[in-house]
Amino acid sequence: MPAIDLPFSRQEYDRRLTKTRAAMQALDLDILFVTDPSNQAWLTGYDGWSFYVHQGVILPQEGDPIWWGRRMDSFGARRTVWMQESEIIGYDDSYVQSTTRHPMQDLAQHLLALADRQGSARPRIGVEMENYYYSAKAHAVLTNAMPEAHLIDATALVNWQRAVKSDEEQVFIRKAARISDHIMQLAIDRAAPGQRKNELVGDIMQAGIYGTGGGWGDYPAIVPLTPSGQDATAAHLTWDGREMQMEEATFFELSGCYRRYHAPLCRTVHLGPAPKDMLHAAQALEDGLAAGIEAARAGNTAGDIARALHAELKKNGIDRNGRCGYPIGLSYPPDWGERTISIREEDNSELRPGMTFHFMPGLWMDNWGLETTETILIRDNGPAEALSQIDRKLFVKDAD
Amino acid sequence: MPAIDLPFSRQEYDRRLTKTRAAMQALDLDILFVTDPSNQAWLTGYDGWSFYVHQGVILPQEGDPIWWGRRMDSFGARRTVWMQESEIIGYDDSYVQSTTRHPMQDLAQHLLALADRQGSARPRIGVEMENYYYSAKAHAVLTNAMPEAHLIDATALVNWQRAVKSDEEQVFIRKAARISDHIMQLAIDRAAPGQRKNELVGDIMQAGIYGTGGGWGDYPAIVPLTPSGQDATAAHLTWDGREMQMEEATFFELSGCYRRYHAPLCRTVHLGPAPKDMLHAAQALEDGLAAGIEAARAGNTAGDIARALHAELKKNGIDRNGRCGYPIGLSYPPDWGERTISIREEDNSELRPGMTFHFMPGLWMDNWGLETTETILIRDNGPAEALSQIDRKLFVKDAD
Repeated sequence: MPAIDLPFSRQEYDRRLTKTRAAMQALDLDILFVTDPSNQAWLTGYDGWSFYVHQGVILPQEGDPIWWGRRMDSFGARRTVWMQESEIIGYDDSYVQSTTRHPMQDLAQHLLALADRQGSARPRIGVEMENYYYSAKAHAVLTNAMPEAHLIDATALVNWQRAVKSDEEQVFIRKAARISDHIMQLAIDRAAPGQRKNELVGDIMQAGIYGTGGGWGDYPAIVPLTPSGQDATAAHLTWDGREMQMEEATFFELSGCYRRYHAPLCRTVHLGPAPKDMLHAAQALEDGLAAGIEAARAGNTAGDIARALHAELKKNGIDRNGRCGYPIGLSYPPDWGERTISIREEDNSELRPGMTFHFMPGLWMDNWGLETTETILIRDNGPAEALSQIDRKLFVKDAD
Repeated sequence: MPAIDLPFSRQEYDRRLTKTRAAMQALDLDILFVTDPSNQAWLTGYDGWSFYVHQGVILPQEGDPIWWGRRMDSFGARRTVWMQESEIIGYDDSYVQSTTRHPMQDLAQHLLALADRQGSARPRIGVEMENYYYSAKAHAVLTNAMPEAHLIDATALVNWQRAVKSDEEQVFIRKAARISDHIMQLAIDRAAPGQRKNELVGDIMQAGIYGTGGGWGDYPAIVPLTPSGQDATAAHLTWDGREMQMEEATFFELSGCYRRYHAPLCRTVHLGPAPKDMLHAAQALEDGLAAGIEAARAGNTAGDIARALHAELKKNGIDRNGRCGYPIGLSYPPDWGERTISIREEDNSELRPGMTFHFMPGLWMDNWGLETTETILIRDNGPAEALSQIDRKLFVKDAD
């Protein structure tokens, strides 16, 4: 049964398989077991909020991938993946959150049978060791259940193949960017003394899911982060029911999402006249972002972006180091980053056309936080394209 | 610096520590390392969307717990936990998603230093092996970094302490239930032919975050699940931009959330006259739910609830087995279940007053899906209390 509404062309999935299999060959893998929901979706189209139980995609060197998961979710697989029904395997509900059996025992049987059909008596099987959805227990059970297999760490093997976005993917990310702009404008417009934060977040979420003319909104992999004042000195606090206050800055870290693709964006709003040190930092940040985007060229490295940013900040007396961005695209909770390249000085990954990053140099100070960021696309030539149309500045809303 | 707005009294946290330490003693643990964000929040108050990087709570047998995480999130810890600043440890950003170093190397140093202060040369340290936020890689690195320690599987040790809800917690769950009812009523009222699904979900989310007079809304650990027609044969599909159609059933699996506490609820709406087999199944499900709730009494077991449900369904020719519910309360994505007890026939866990469950017997058939569920509270005497006020039935919306 063909999937009803595949996000991408079959040619696109074929290209993804080819790239992934080349990377598997470099590790001499017979089979790759993919647990990252983003990787599963990227390879097969699978989409559903079922990643809280064990599931994954089994990718042999030849033949179609196999989706494996809880039986009740195999019906979701039939509705979303491009493979035939014969390539969908469901395990019994008795394996779910049981203390006496584990889904990896079921998986092991399928992996061994597949290896046997391939003629590999001691198969080399790649697993994503560093992933939210591949627990220490899962690995221990799988290892014990297959003493004849070699489990090889293939963390981020698929994620790396996702770094350069296809034309089809760029269309999705641009749709997400339109939604990001739409909800950011809403946040900037509505931010006001007395505005309850949770109600503002509710409006942001509603607008994000409504989407824009370009497309309906999917759920972003991270909820809106919208802390104010002292709470904004921390990077990842969510909201509460308090009212926004004069003399406080609020940063909005938001992303639209179109069919699981993201384009994160941050802007900061200060209610009332902003303190001098924040204005100074905001200007430095604008200069740093401009310098970073100027350095974000094909052939340069991720580290070059960080260095360009940090040099501008340093000129202005701001000593910031650490990570200031990451690749983005297809994602599921809890993170919209791809967990491969980091924009930081020590990262020498080469920038290539079609890569997309959230260039994200937040400043979290003693008494306030400031986030002005861009989702950028590396072009064939010249500096990166920033996908947002929202002014790159600190928004100061004076009472009158 | 005391936390600004702790959800619970200090006495409540003290009780939680005492219970958890008794369970640690049963496993002869010197230290427990807690990665589950729900467990971290339950023990310390920590709250933030930072669980996509490695972090956790270090609980020694004596003294306050220690929150450990990324340095930028240590500022969030200062804003949310009840411990002193001295009990908050931040690791450097260079550890984040690095291919050359791992946060568990930093954690190991702190654990060993703590064990040393406690005089344990070969400490027994509990870790949550089966958890989204304790990866296979994390365990491998931690094991290698502490050859002198014994890492003991303490999966769900804290989760089990959470099973019986305190009076303070029950207040939160009741607030969440009011929000659940509010958004379910909205979904039922708005479901209509031509209604775009994503816009309905946007409205549901907005209303859930606005909350009710009883409290502002937090983000639920699972997004609204709202599949229609053939998509509702699968349990966990999310939404798209299509319009709702006549002759289709849509189930709504929703939860309000108050300060991370949930009260999930499902109802199903059929547009147009419902087919006979669905009406029959809906009536059987109502009877089964009533029988299950009748059996959900202190002293009975989780299995008793499942048996009572299944007997009623069987009377009506519906052969359903498998899991039909789980404990709920405090939670973070990707799951609002507590992952301890399962409501299924083989589970002999004793029901105790104050336990809360999502009693969730979904029926996913060949051509439609039906979900009618209840969040229930085990009482001192008599059958459980269902927290929702929404009619327990299939909602059939005829065109006129």
